[in-house]
Amino acid sequence: MKVIIVGGVAGGMSAATRLRRLDENAEIIVLDKGPHVSFANCGLPYYVSGEIEEREALLLHTPESLGARFNLDVRVNSEAVDLETDKKQLKIKFGEKEYWESYDKLILSPGASPFVPPIGGINEAENVFVLRNVPNLDAVMAFIHQHQPKKATVIGAGFIGLEMVENLVERGLEVTLVEKAPHVLPPLDEEMSAYVEKELRENGVEVILNQSATEFLDHGKTVVLENGEQLATDMIILSVGVVPETALAKKADIALGLRGAILVDEAYQTSAKDVYAVGDAIVVKQQINGEDALISLASPANRQGRQVADIISGMKRTNKGSIGTAIVRVFKMSAASTGLSERQVKLAGLPYEVVHVSGKDHAGYYPGATSVMLKLVFDPETGKIYGAQGVGEKGVDKRIDILATAIKGDLTVADLPELEFTYAPPFGSAKDPVNMLGYAGLNIMEGLTDLVQWHEVSDKLAQGAVLLDVRNQAELLSGEFASSLHIPLNDLRERLHELDPEKEYIISCASGQRSYIAERVLKQKGFKAANLDGSFGLYQVVRPQEIK
Amino acid sequence: MKVIIVGGVAGGMSAATRLRRLDENAEIIVLDKGPHVSFANCGLPYYVSGEIEEREALLLHTPESLGARFNLDVRVNSEAVDLETDKKQLKIKFGEKEYWESYDKLILSPGASPFVPPIGGINEAENVFVLRNVPNLDAVMAFIHQHQPKKATVIGAGFIGLEMVENLVERGLEVTLVEKAPHVLPPLDEEMSAYVEKELRENGVEVILNQSATEFLDHGKTVVLENGEQLATDMIILSVGVVPETALAKKADIALGLRGAILVDEAYQTSAKDVYAVGDAIVVKQQINGEDALISLASPANRQGRQVADIISGMKRTNKGSIGTAIVRVFKMSAASTGLSERQVKLAGLPYEVVHVSGKDHAGYYPGATSVMLKLVFDPETGKIYGAQGVGEKGVDKRIDILATAIKGDLTVADLPELEFTYAPPFGSAKDPVNMLGYAGLNIMEGLTDLVQWHEVSDKLAQGAVLLDVRNQAELLSGEFASSLHIPLNDLRERLHELDPEKEYIISCASGQRSYIAERVLKQKGFKAANLDGSFGLYQVVRPQEIK
Repeated sequence: MKVIIVGGVAGGMSAATRLRRLDENAEIIVLDKGPHVSFANCGLPYYVSGEIEEREALLLHTPESLGARFNLDVRVNSEAVDLETDKKQLKIKFGEKEYWESYDKLILSPGASPFVPPIGGINEAENVFVLRNVPNLDAVMAFIHQHQPKKATVIGAGFIGLEMVENLVERGLEVTLVEKAPHVLPPLDEEMSAYVEKELRENGVEVILNQSATEFLDHGKTVVLENGEQLATDMIILSVGVVPETALAKKADIALGLRGAILVDEAYQTSAKDVYAVGDAIVVKQQINGEDALISLASPANRQGRQVADIISGMKRTNKGSIGTAIVRVFKMSAASTGLSERQVKLAGLPYEVVHVSGKDHAGYYPGATSVMLKLVFDPETGKIYGAQGVGEKGVDKRIDILATAIKGDLTVADLPELEFTYAPPFGSAKDPVNMLGYAGLNIMEGLTDLVQWHEVSDKLAQGAVLLDVRNQAELLSGEFASSLHIPLNDLRERLHELDPEKEYIISCASGQRSYIAERVLKQKGFKAANLDGSFGLYQVVRPQEIK
Repeated sequence: MKVIIVGGVAGGMSAATRLRRLDENAEIIVLDKGPHVSFANCGLPYYVSGEIEEREALLLHTPESLGARFNLDVRVNSEAVDLETDKKQLKIKFGEKEYWESYDKLILSPGASPFVPPIGGINEAENVFVLRNVPNLDAVMAFIHQHQPKKATVIGAGFIGLEMVENLVERGLEVTLVEKAPHVLPPLDEEMSAYVEKELRENGVEVILNQSATEFLDHGKTVVLENGEQLATDMIILSVGVVPETALAKKADIALGLRGAILVDEAYQTSAKDVYAVGDAIVVKQQINGEDALISLASPANRQGRQVADIISGMKRTNKGSIGTAIVRVFKMSAASTGLSERQVKLAGLPYEVVHVSGKDHAGYYPGATSVMLKLVFDPETGKIYGAQGVGEKGVDKRIDILATAIKGDLTVADLPELEFTYAPPFGSAKDPVNMLGYAGLNIMEGLTDLVQWHEVSDKLAQGAVLLDVRNQAELLSGEFASSLHIPLNDLRERLHELDPEKEYIISCASGQRSYIAERVLKQKGFKAANLDGSFGLYQVVRPQEIK
């Protein structure tokens, strides 16, 4: 059997190496149009700051090492430029040379390339970079070494954009971040991304939202925004998303779907016989709602690559789809998500509730505990978990990984309190924030609490509701709502007479835990009460202008 | 409704506070025979070293603060000494005073107390301590301050024993650890605990296995072991397990089960009407095999306490049982487990296979990556996961928490590769060690690999098998098997003629990954080959005497 694999990173190389382990006699050719295969693309930004010191660390394997270990015929700088699926022939371009290679099975794993919008003046600018591969990185580094830029503009505040911001700042540059969406990190919801925006600003990054670049002037030394504002810059990083690399598939009349990505069945078979596709270039099923999606992440790509090798070798495998789990570190903060965001759930018209829980990464009484803010989006009827997000200094990855596992296991809100985690003071708490998400979600489902979300507060207040702050006196020093009634929780039962039975009270503490206790007291005493979800802690981050 | 709760820590206090949130009008009395409630018992060892600096940090709440916040009647130094379940009366001892208190509902959450074996001379020794509560800790600290001990002996190498060892060493004491089992950390299997034993020895701890203390001489200045050896010591910590505190339940003729623990139904109801029990004192169902078990951990106790409050308030809740998840930090190492160990599975006569995977806590190319060694015990027919264990410097808690969640979600070995985790270089890898456990397990289930376990090697060699080491030449410097054939993996295909088709080859590399590749090459070329699970990395830790 002769197998050609187009694309030698995540999905392609996983397919090649697995195939070799299954079939010592197959002829396996791996093509990559770039000079490297199997490099650490997710590590590229960290070389910019020097956090990853050695460029070689990013080059996990060479064509030679893969040849020796897996008996692979790895051909770099070799682009697949044409495909005749009826003749099972692939045309390969190597330098000036072009030649045809036949195959029994063809696996397309071309990935996705950075989207470069048609911004005026972009072709005249020599300081504009994207970051997908090692040559891109080499270009960035050569520019930095040669021109010693002081100011950088990063356009696009997604995962890679934020990593570039951090690493450019760590390198000593002054960085401006421009994002078209109303908040950074668009895959997350606004209030969660607000923590990241705060961290960016605290690290000196200028954050410009609701804007995109419309023109580059002076050979890229000036970025013009939609509102006419002009930013002076020495270099520009474009990270405004990716597009599946499907020119070859298109040329070969292979069926394409969502946003031009390759359509495959559950066995990764494309519309052309004996042609398979995996990775960022294919349409996958978002497992949570069953809809078509593009999920450009390394983990699913690796799994798909391995599975397609199994399928080609005659084993039964099914692409069950992906839920999408991702994380980014931004200075001391990390932000992660799995599954659907609130925005996606709302857009899909699904019934949903949201709950926020703020806890500690490990026991509060043990040194070094930091806050973890988690958000859960779920169906209040069935408890089905649509998605989760987290921000914090430590332990966010763990909680989102747990919740991603819970989603894959079809666990519901009611199951989260049942989860038993490793607990010793340096690692966790007897009631982990994930357990607390379950308790809080159940309280909503069972009618024990009514939540008011951060974005509902101003309307509620306008309708006559009163904010009741139950924090201690000392906590008010860290900030207060512009207007609220203050009764510390421990005094509440004795001071109920100060409340108006006709009014609705939106109760807040620092995190939402004590305000829930207060809500229960008030509700049982006949008052109209609701809990401000996430409480003052969340509100001051997402609505700083409404804090005094 | 008048509710009395016996025991004011994890389960008891969770019940009390939840009950108050559900019922503002209930009369809730919480009794504790000690001077504190709601203290951080898991934090006690860390105060010994000073890592937790403030004693107050361990006292999370006072009776007064709980009174103010939850309107609880908290009575410390109050022991429940008699119970008449027909009259619904509890006798309480407070100092010299005894009185009866009636109840509508009684919740027993007395916990478990450290087992103190009847060792000769123990009553004459004033330097013997256990560590369950703050008075125990105060006694330890008073002794340390007064006598400035140089040498300590810790008897029992379970979770608390190991935490005490670490903290005594951090305090500057010379520590000897005595364990009756053949290895430290008996809840884990031998090869996993070997990493912990290595860490203990590297930190100067004298570890004595297969021994218990038979006598204390010279007022506890000498510990005599079974083999007659005498250890000089200045102080002794006893941590040889716990026994459920069920004297009161027994006196009241409440039905007891396994090891004298309280029997309850799925609604925590004991055999006596309106008497409930939760926490370390009850018999629970081990969810994985459905058998009775005692699981003395904070997380289930907290959940049970909350659930019993729900049940008393008329909500439907079921104690589904526990799987048991635990972790301990020992110097730089952490060791964790969830579910059943290999030993337990073997004892239960269940069909099982074992696989070890060694990976990195985060991307290997990103600075600071450390090794994580994971073990999975599973049913090779169905893929059901019985349990998992992990050791390493970082990220062990995360992996075991994920696997604990997978077990609760009835995920199988085949589901583990499907899990999508947060991946960015500082947090993980595109293929997480948990994914790799799934791939490795599937390879066993699908007949692609045959594993030889570390304890099977010597028998296999005696029967004529040959160890084939496929590491690179340079790696041999870190140690070699006493006897093995060495062919680096990358040379293997060219040197197959050096192998004997009649012999069986047990292949090893550093972690088991390259040796698996070699196994696949050999198998497809007609050789008898198996992979040494965990490979040289594991073997040198658990069988150091067989390494040259």
